[in-house]
Amino acid sequence: MSQPLRAAVIGTGFIGRVHVRSARLAGAEVVGVAASSPDRSSDAAKSLDVPRAYASGLEAARDPNVDVIHICTPNALHMEVAHAALEAGKHVVCEKPLATSLHDARVLTDLAKRKKLIGTVPFINRYHPMVREARARVQSDETGKLYLIQGSYLQDWLMQAGDTNWRVDVAAGGASRAFADIGSHLCDLLEWITGEQFTSLIATLDTPIALRSAAASRVAFQASGEVTDTKAVNTEDVACLILRTNRGTLASLTISQVSAGRKNRLWFELDGAQQSVMFDLESPEQLWIGRREGMTLLVRDPSQGSAEQRRLAFLPAGHAQGWGDCFEAFVRDSYAAIRGETHIGLPTFSDGARSMSIVEAVLRSSATQQWTSITDGSTH
Amino acid sequence: MSQPLRAAVIGTGFIGRVHVRSARLAGAEVVGVAASSPDRSSDAAKSLDVPRAYASGLEAARDPNVDVIHICTPNALHMEVAHAALEAGKHVVCEKPLATSLHDARVLTDLAKRKKLIGTVPFINRYHPMVREARARVQSDETGKLYLIQGSYLQDWLMQAGDTNWRVDVAAGGASRAFADIGSHLCDLLEWITGEQFTSLIATLDTPIALRSAAASRVAFQASGEVTDTKAVNTEDVACLILRTNRGTLASLTISQVSAGRKNRLWFELDGAQQSVMFDLESPEQLWIGRREGMTLLVRDPSQGSAEQRRLAFLPAGHAQGWGDCFEAFVRDSYAAIRGETHIGLPTFSDGARSMSIVEAVLRSSATQQWTSITDGSTH
Amino acid sequence: MSQPLRAAVIGTGFIGRVHVRSARLAGAEVVGVAASSPDRSSDAAKSLDVPRAYASGLEAARDPNVDVIHICTPNALHMEVAHAALEAGKHVVCEKPLATSLHDARVLTDLAKRKKLIGTVPFINRYHPMVREARARVQSDETGKLYLIQGSYLQDWLMQAGDTNWRVDVAAGGASRAFADIGSHLCDLLEWITGEQFTSLIATLDTPIALRSAAASRVAFQASGEVTDTKAVNTEDVACLILRTNRGTLASLTISQVSAGRKNRLWFELDGAQQSVMFDLESPEQLWIGRREGMTLLVRDPSQGSAEQRRLAFLPAGHAQGWGDCFEAFVRDSYAAIRGETHIGLPTFSDGARSMSIVEAVLRSSATQQWTSITDGSTH
Amino acid sequence: MSQPLRAAVIGTGFIGRVHVRSARLAGAEVVGVAASSPDRSSDAAKSLDVPRAYASGLEAARDPNVDVIHICTPNALHMEVAHAALEAGKHVVCEKPLATSLHDARVLTDLAKRKKLIGTVPFINRYHPMVREARARVQSDETGKLYLIQGSYLQDWLMQAGDTNWRVDVAAGGASRAFADIGSHLCDLLEWITGEQFTSLIATLDTPIALRSAAASRVAFQASGEVTDTKAVNTEDVACLILRTNRGTLASLTISQVSAGRKNRLWFELDGAQQSVMFDLESPEQLWIGRREGMTLLVRDPSQGSAEQRRLAFLPAGHAQGWGDCFEAFVRDSYAAIRGETHIGLPTFSDGARSMSIVEAVLRSSATQQWTSITDGSTH
Repeated sequence: MSQPLRAAVIGTGFIGRVHVRSARLAGAEVVGVAASSPDRSSDAAKSLDVPRAYASGLEAARDPNVDVIHICTPNALHMEVAHAALEAGKHVVCEKPLATSLHDARVLTDLAKRKKLIGTVPFINRYHPMVREARARVQSDETGKLYLIQGSYLQDWLMQAGDTNWRVDVAAGGASRAFADIGSHLCDLLEWITGEQFTSLIATLDTPIALRSAAASRVAFQASGEVTDTKAVNTEDVACLILRTNRGTLASLTISQVSAGRKNRLWFELDGAQQSVMFDLESPEQLWIGRREGMTLLVRDPSQGSAEQRRLAFLPAGHAQGWGDCFEAFVRDSYAAIRGETHIGLPTFSDGARSMSIVEAVLRSSATQQWTSITDGSTH
Repeated sequence: MSQPLRAAVIGTGFIGRVHVRSARLAGAEVVGVAASSPDRSSDAAKSLDVPRAYASGLEAARDPNVDVIHICTPNALHMEVAHAALEAGKHVVCEKPLATSLHDARVLTDLAKRKKLIGTVPFINRYHPMVREARARVQSDETGKLYLIQGSYLQDWLMQAGDTNWRVDVAAGGASRAFADIGSHLCDLLEWITGEQFTSLIATLDTPIALRSAAASRVAFQASGEVTDTKAVNTEDVACLILRTNRGTLASLTISQVSAGRKNRLWFELDGAQQSVMFDLESPEQLWIGRREGMTLLVRDPSQGSAEQRRLAFLPAGHAQGWGDCFEAFVRDSYAAIRGETHIGLPTFSDGARSMSIVEAVLRSSATQQWTSITDGSTH
Repeated sequence: MSQPLRAAVIGTGFIGRVHVRSARLAGAEVVGVAASSPDRSSDAAKSLDVPRAYASGLEAARDPNVDVIHICTPNALHMEVAHAALEAGKHVVCEKPLATSLHDARVLTDLAKRKKLIGTVPFINRYHPMVREARARVQSDETGKLYLIQGSYLQDWLMQAGDTNWRVDVAAGGASRAFADIGSHLCDLLEWITGEQFTSLIATLDTPIALRSAAASRVAFQASGEVTDTKAVNTEDVACLILRTNRGTLASLTISQVSAGRKNRLWFELDGAQQSVMFDLESPEQLWIGRREGMTLLVRDPSQGSAEQRRLAFLPAGHAQGWGDCFEAFVRDSYAAIRGETHIGLPTFSDGARSMSIVEAVLRSSATQQWTSITDGSTH
Repeated sequence: MSQPLRAAVIGTGFIGRVHVRSARLAGAEVVGVAASSPDRSSDAAKSLDVPRAYASGLEAARDPNVDVIHICTPNALHMEVAHAALEAGKHVVCEKPLATSLHDARVLTDLAKRKKLIGTVPFINRYHPMVREARARVQSDETGKLYLIQGSYLQDWLMQAGDTNWRVDVAAGGASRAFADIGSHLCDLLEWITGEQFTSLIATLDTPIALRSAAASRVAFQASGEVTDTKAVNTEDVACLILRTNRGTLASLTISQVSAGRKNRLWFELDGAQQSVMFDLESPEQLWIGRREGMTLLVRDPSQGSAEQRRLAFLPAGHAQGWGDCFEAFVRDSYAAIRGETHIGLPTFSDGARSMSIVEAVLRSSATQQWTSITDGSTH
């Protein structure tokens, strides 16, 4: 093995720690971390056994001893650090949404391209082996022409007024919350699997919990306690969408962070002329195939199925792979790209910008209650 | 038991035979049947062991020896026969959709009211015990205020170009096919369970199978053979809707008759402030309850749960009740109403007209691609 | 249709009423009923709208105006009435277990044979369409040679000390309770589906609830209240068995009436050289097929699958058939046999006697804790 | 963090590589590996980026620069290397079965005890968070006294005559195959969860595939090709057991490596006086709780449930943890024990010896076809 990549991770909350672990498992040396203050950086460096604690994300972005920067901060901070890192000639792995506006996302995408640097965005659901199997079946036309796309992404971690998080604030998370946070995953996955692009949509956003705790932001996925002081919420809990693709296929999508009992249920069903395929992230080891004469449950299996399913299925069938394994595979493929190796389906800054173009169309449509075109925001 | 009701059944296809059986199980005497021709009426009377074969539906509707008329013909024929039967002072059980226009449905509803006759429409999914359980939990506020309504009704019996049926023709089935046929069931169920009324909607209809076999109409739920001659289809295969209720709740519904592997999958999830409830018609003996701390599967059980669940659960838990049992319960409650007994949830002509008001709003919205109000069609 | 069969039903509890309904649906005239006393007979006749109330089961058995007798009494009373009915030249449908000893069951079987009368026993699980599908796949060798048979039948209606029923008493129900009551269903089904016969077994019975309420017998499947007075239980709650078939296949079976949350879960898995088939009575509309390369869920469908599955699938796919539908099909086929028509898989007195030979082997093995041969009890 | 542990891994097949990864994730330095030959050791060292390649397992076991030895060789080689490692004062993590005889397993257990060294055996299913939840519910008596234990462990990777592996040979794998390989996992789990000990059993072993490919051993979990040359198999494909515990509870267990469509399905159900708990390794993120009034599905969730479930649930609910995560947790707890920290449920050599005592009782019972006591093999 050649010289390991040198990585720095900015943001050391839950997801930052996942990046540290995945970077190491992919063979990188994690040379430093930055948290929200120099003190917190020191604490994180110590607990993660990382040599250097940066005073700020910008310091990390400019450290000449770093090859790749992982950005795991609240969304509103992505732009500045990613821009600085690219300007400093570093590859970037940036959490999604890539930015809080399509404009910023395109700036970053164009900058990475001009600098010939790799920029990736962890749309990690692409790395579930059975998602790859679904894609192989659509791309090889086993499903036949698609007649209907259905999807939902449901969670319950914000189902009570006492549940809050920086994502609830427009200033920290951006104007869209539920859709940008999890709807973006669903749309990315559907476009990638089907090879079709959404061209227009009508969206309705809703905020049934109009007031939430005014307490300082809480840790994601932690249940809330008593609520005393509240403030108005300006980001959506729920989004309902109807979309059309460039091939005319109709799609119906539902996004919610207030659906009791749904922990992290990304679900889709693609109904084709010959077969349907259905995937449920809460049972990620299987893929449901519907045909008129019966249903088949395919299980992840390194000795069966499509090439990409096999590539990502490193455990024998029945030995569950998990979310962490997807994350690792994404980081491994990101690093492979940095080394010049290409693997199918790596989500790049271009995909991150694409995602923002859908987020902005959702916001526009929600404001006007009209069908709206999805535009890529380019001026040419 | 007093004198049995005397019933006549018009239309002797699959569903007509279900009515004959259910009428008998509910204690009625089936005195006659009418099919699409006098000869067919005779054949049906013989095979069903019914004394009289009518020359036509109208003859049946006017037979003085009949108390209640069951109408099981193609949709476009409902109006004439139902009207004649009501005019002749008979109670009517009419298949859904009650008519092919809201106007006609209202005429029938008003006529039944004026004549003080019972008119019912088999929205039989209300008769699944676990649907009653779902309703009890919403009505008693165990779920808490609803945050989101999700639903779909998916079938695959029309998934190939060779599959056809009288419902495909506007002339026989009405302007809406998939939505009027099965979407109507879903909307009826959701309004009845939640107690909320849809007030506006945006709908998109789609017909991915634009050409179908021109062969004479086929039997429902029969797979097709080779397709030689085709004709254009003017009724939808697929419908996607977003709706608002009178309490402001958002709903997302998807209807399809071309979803491979889905046989008769009416599904809904009601996400409330405290709990979610989820029902799947393909597993009708259970109800899923979602809470943040875990999910509960309630099973149909005459010794557990809500009063109405118990009333309709006549078999011990684990001894599956089926679709036929729902149908029977609906006819039994219809006949009870004729005898002056009231049971909760009997779907009447008024519900049939309500359903048509949603069908017409769907057609309007689909034509304009705008949000549309659901109006009851009354002129006052 | 020719002259309808004239049926009498003896025993008017839950299952007796199911027989009345099924007899009528199969075209019979129910001419009389007998309950546990003349008064109760009168009440039952009235509520079931049956012309005649017999003073006793024997009176019914000897009524010259009856063609077929349905016996639905506690087990210990089967022998006397069935014997009298056969002697009087009547066909008999007798609840299982056919008798409380193999000897008696053989006497009845031989008598029916000598008299050329039809005697059937409602092993009704044979009438689930997907059970027929399972059998077709084993019999046509799609599964390949069987490597292992697994099965269980679990209920919870006797899981508390306050739950009791006449079956708990040896005197009324026979020496075996859980095994004779539900294990008998499982063994009948497995032998019928596989075409293999169990030849030897080792069984262990257990009675974890050693004391139960001494209250007068309760209605089946009704939860219990407070327990004040108790008595010792001499029939098993639980049975564990290992068996060998005549082709050498190993089987493992578990029976329990004290498994919390299991309502009526008959389950089996047949593991063959090419495929496995798995069925769960709590989801009776589907059959699971296991292959190395994936699992298939077949659904009941009148337009798919084996001939017998289609024959019994009278509703379209996705319109659930239930337990009552199986019961009806069994009675319909019993009556067809009386009219001289043969349908595959009708469970006769011979099957009832076979079942008792297994029950007795279970009791012998449990007493000795040794492997025991299953013998048919014949002396020649 | 103090000085990292120095680990050597012996055996570099699939499971050896899992140990390398888990050791690193638990903070150890992997200083060397040994494969089946010096050349293979070198290759493995290179591909795993490990500094040293040992000429043999014994060399590794005696390397003074190693603190802990991981043994991942075929079973028959465990004894010699583990013994040498303990004699050399090293802690040992040894794959299961700990040895191929109870005698050897006890020798190792006693030696580790005498030397005050940690010896652990990866009964890693103990590390599924929902298994911990099941244990907490039994231990806290939420289930109530156990009435029945049911379990099975089914796989299909040896379902064809062409499938083979070193485990098929008595010489390499020991006299029991399916039971020792996977039945051991199931028994360990059941005793650990219930706190009851199996005291006697009757077992029947079966080998429906009597001849298998004579080809050199294949990689585990790889499907086979054509079979040309075969040899007789002396180890079982299938095992059926009935057992009693020290508290008198009856248990029924089934083990198979020839069940088509079952990949790695460890399943158990514990039926208690108040509740049942059911776990299925193919859906390891949930636990089924059965009660008379309904079933509950608990999901893994760091913010819910028992202390040990929370300790091992490091990802938010709905973000699947997998088999690899269990393995890591086991190695982490093994290393914690080496550092003197105690965590609940660490499987030690003592558990490995206990497992061998059950394996030997199974072999004795199978030979005699009699109920057999499980003895610990100690002579005092």
